[in-house]
Amino acid sequence: MRMVDLIRRKRDGGRLDRPAIDRIVAGVVDGTVPDYQLAALLMAIVLRGMTPEETADLTAAMVDSGVKVTFDGLPGTPVDKHSTGGVGDKTSLVIAPLVAACGGVVPMMSGRGLGHTGGTLDKLEAIPGFRTSLTLHEIRRAIATVGAALVGQTAEIAPADRRLYALRDVTGTVESIPLISASIMSKKIAEGIGALVLDVKTGAGAFMQTEGASRDLAESLVRIGRAAGVRTEAFVTRMDAPLGREVGHANEVVESIETLKGRGPRDLEHLSVLLAARMLVLSRVGAGDDDATQRVRDALASGAGLESFRRIVAHQGGDPAVLDDYARLPVAPGEHQVRASRPGIVHALHAGRIGRAAVALGGGRSTLDDAIDPGVGVTVVTPRGSAVREGDTVLVVHHRHGQGLSEAVPLLERAVAIEDAPFDVPSLVVDVVG
Amino acid sequence: MRMVDLIRRKRDGGRLDRPAIDRIVAGVVDGTVPDYQLAALLMAIVLRGMTPEETADLTAAMVDSGVKVTFDGLPGTPVDKHSTGGVGDKTSLVIAPLVAACGGVVPMMSGRGLGHTGGTLDKLEAIPGFRTSLTLHEIRRAIATVGAALVGQTAEIAPADRRLYALRDVTGTVESIPLISASIMSKKIAEGIGALVLDVKTGAGAFMQTEGASRDLAESLVRIGRAAGVRTEAFVTRMDAPLGREVGHANEVVESIETLKGRGPRDLEHLSVLLAARMLVLSRVGAGDDDATQRVRDALASGAGLESFRRIVAHQGGDPAVLDDYARLPVAPGEHQVRASRPGIVHALHAGRIGRAAVALGGGRSTLDDAIDPGVGVTVVTPRGSAVREGDTVLVVHHRHGQGLSEAVPLLERAVAIEDAPFDVPSLVVDVVG
Repeated sequence: MRMVDLIRRKRDGGRLDRPAIDRIVAGVVDGTVPDYQLAALLMAIVLRGMTPEETADLTAAMVDSGVKVTFDGLPGTPVDKHSTGGVGDKTSLVIAPLVAACGGVVPMMSGRGLGHTGGTLDKLEAIPGFRTSLTLHEIRRAIATVGAALVGQTAEIAPADRRLYALRDVTGTVESIPLISASIMSKKIAEGIGALVLDVKTGAGAFMQTEGASRDLAESLVRIGRAAGVRTEAFVTRMDAPLGREVGHANEVVESIETLKGRGPRDLEHLSVLLAARMLVLSRVGAGDDDATQRVRDALASGAGLESFRRIVAHQGGDPAVLDDYARLPVAPGEHQVRASRPGIVHALHAGRIGRAAVALGGGRSTLDDAIDPGVGVTVVTPRGSAVREGDTVLVVHHRHGQGLSEAVPLLERAVAIEDAPFDVPSLVVDVVG
Repeated sequence: MRMVDLIRRKRDGGRLDRPAIDRIVAGVVDGTVPDYQLAALLMAIVLRGMTPEETADLTAAMVDSGVKVTFDGLPGTPVDKHSTGGVGDKTSLVIAPLVAACGGVVPMMSGRGLGHTGGTLDKLEAIPGFRTSLTLHEIRRAIATVGAALVGQTAEIAPADRRLYALRDVTGTVESIPLISASIMSKKIAEGIGALVLDVKTGAGAFMQTEGASRDLAESLVRIGRAAGVRTEAFVTRMDAPLGREVGHANEVVESIETLKGRGPRDLEHLSVLLAARMLVLSRVGAGDDDATQRVRDALASGAGLESFRRIVAHQGGDPAVLDDYARLPVAPGEHQVRASRPGIVHALHAGRIGRAAVALGGGRSTLDDAIDPGVGVTVVTPRGSAVREGDTVLVVHHRHGQGLSEAVPLLERAVAIEDAPFDVPSLVVDVVG
C-alpha cells in the first residue's frame, strides 16, 4: 500500500478503507509519511470528501494513535462541552462550574485561540497562577475534588491530530467537514467522556458561515460520537455578533464571573444554562430538561456555580481572589472609542472582524508559539438592536500603547452597521441535532 | 499575498493571476515555499483545473525561472520533437539524424525514463561513451558541426519544473493537463527552438489513456507553444502496443539503427518519417508536406540518415562502430520465451504491462537516482495481427541472471491477448492538432 496510490485513490474520488486509513494515521504519528504527501492527501479529501464511514474510520484511527483516558470510580458519567469556535464565547468558564455544582463530572479539555476565535485555555490563563497543563493524574484528582478540570489536551491524546492540524492550518485544508469532525471527535472520544454537548457556531464569526454547512458538521459530529458510544448532541448557534459584551481574555473572565454572579448578559447566560442543562441530562444527572434547567438556574441563583468556579480556580493554582477583585487581572491601559457614524439602530457587530481586531491588538496568535496579551480586547457598549445617536460609543478598544490600533480600528469601524429600521435580535439557537 | 491564501483561492475554484503565479514559481525556485504548500496547491490544481490563461502564465513563469537559450547565426529554425512518453518509442533516435541530414537544425532535449515509459537519454547512453550532458556551448557546437544534439536539459533550463516534477511524482499530482502542459512547454520554449512537433500518446501504454484527454492535452500544448511564438503542431498517436518490436535500451538502439538502414518495422518507420517531415515543414526547410516527406524518404534510402547518426554519435563521444557491430552494445545474457497459450490471432500486446515488465527486469527506475540495466528488455516476436499456434514464442525476455523475471513474466503473460477473430492493426495517428 504505497502512500502515493492512496493519494491517487482519494484524488479520483475513491474510498479509503480502514487498513488504508490506519496506514496513513500510523505514518502521521511515526513520521514516515512526509508532510508533502499528507498535504496532497488532505487537499484531495477537502475536494473529494469522505463518506461517513471513512470519517468514522479516520476518527477511530486518530483515537487509537494515542492513549484513551478512563475515568473509573467517579460518581457519574464524565461529560464535556465543545464549541467549534466563536468570538466572545466564554461559555466554558460559566458552564463547567455550573455543571460541577449540580453534581456533574466535567473533564473539560479545551483548546487555544487560533485565527480570529478565542480559546478557553488562553482566557483561563489570564487568571494569575492558573495552570491549564495538568497531568492525567492531576486531572483525575481535580475531578474527584472539585468536580471539574479545565485543561488542555495532554500530549498522549490523539497525537495524530496535532500534526494534521498544524499542517492543515498552513495548506488551506482546514475547511472540510470530515477533517474537522475527525479532529474534534478523536480528541473528545479519547478523553474518556460518556456524554458530549456540541455547540456548532454558524455565521460571520464562525468557521462555518452557512447554516447548511454548520448543520452538516453538527450531524457528522453527532454521528461519530454516537458510533463511538458517547451520548452526543449538537446545537447549531448563531455567531454573527460576539457572544456577550466582551471579546478578549481578562475581560472575558470578568464577564464569566459576572454571569456566575447572575449579572451576565442575557445571551451568554441563556446559552450557558441551555448547554449546561443538556450536559446534565446526557450525563443522567438531571431527570429531564425541566429538572436539569431548574438545577442549573438554582446553582446560578444560589451562588453555588460561583463557589464551584472559585474551587476550580484554586485547585488549578489560580488566584481565587480575582472573583472578588477584578483589578487582579491584567488590563491594557489604553482605551479607544469606536463611535456611531450616524444615528439609528445597531444592526450588525460583525463577529469575524471584531475577532480579527482583537488579534491585531495582540490578543491572538498567528502561530501556536506566539504569546498573547491577555489585557487587550474589545467591549461592546451598544449590542445589536440598540438605538444610538451619532457619536455615541459603540465599541471600546482596550489596547496597550496603541499596538495594533491602526489595523484594529478600521476593522471595527467596518464591523458596525447602523440602519434606520428596527432590529430584532434573532434567536441564538438555530437547530438541535441529536 | 500569503501562500495559504493562494492555495485556498485555487481550492475554491478561483483563478490565479500572473502576479500570483510569479510569486508561486519564485517560491519554488528559491525554496521559500515549502513542499507541503506546493503539494496542496498542486492537488488543488489537479482537481480544480486551470484556465488556458493560467496555464500560459504558469508556463511563462517557469520559462522565466531559468535561462532562455538562443541559437543565433544558425542556417535554419531550430526544431525539436517531443513525445509524452511511450513504450518502445525510439523515434527520436531515428528522427534527429534524418532531419539533420535534410538540413534541419535539431537541438533535441530529451528526458529520462520514468514510470513504465523509456527515455531517450537512457537509450543513447547504452552506446558506449555517449555523453548526453553537454554544456550549452557544446550543444551549439554540435549543432553547427553535425546539425543535431541529443542531450538532456541543462540545469539552467526551467529549474522550477525540476522541483515541481519531483514533487508531483510522489504526491499523485502528475495527471493534470495544465501541469503536464506547463512542464513540457516551459522546457521546450526555454530551449530556444522556433518550431516543435509533439507526439501525444494515447492508450494503454500512455499516461493519457483516453483519446479525449490526449486531444485536450495536444490542444493545450499547441496553444501554449503558439502563444510563445513557437510554431507548434501535435499528433495524437496510439500507444496501445509497443512501437516497433523492441522495448529496452540497447535493443532499441539496434532497432533505431536498423530503421535508419531501411530495415525497421513499418510502424516505427512510418511514424518517424511523418514526424520528421513535419519538423522540416515547420522549420521551413521543406517546401511542403510532399516535398518534406520525399526528402526524409531520400535520406533514409540513401543512407544519409544513418551517416548523420554516425556523426552525432561520434561528436557526442559515443562509439560509432556500434552502427556496424551491435555486439559492442551491452546485452543481458538470459532469455525467456513467453509463448502463446492458445492458437489464434494476436490482438493485444498491452504496452503498459510490457513497459512495467521492462522496469521490473532492471530496465527502468523508481526514482531518478536509480541505475538502469541497458541490456535487459523485451522483444516482440509476433506483432498484433500475427497468427500463432499454441506454444509459439510471442515475446522474448532479455534478463540478467533471472533478475525481476518473477515479476515480469506474469505481467507479460497478461499483456498478450490471443483471439479467434482477425485483427486489423488500427492506424497509428488518431488526430492532428495544429
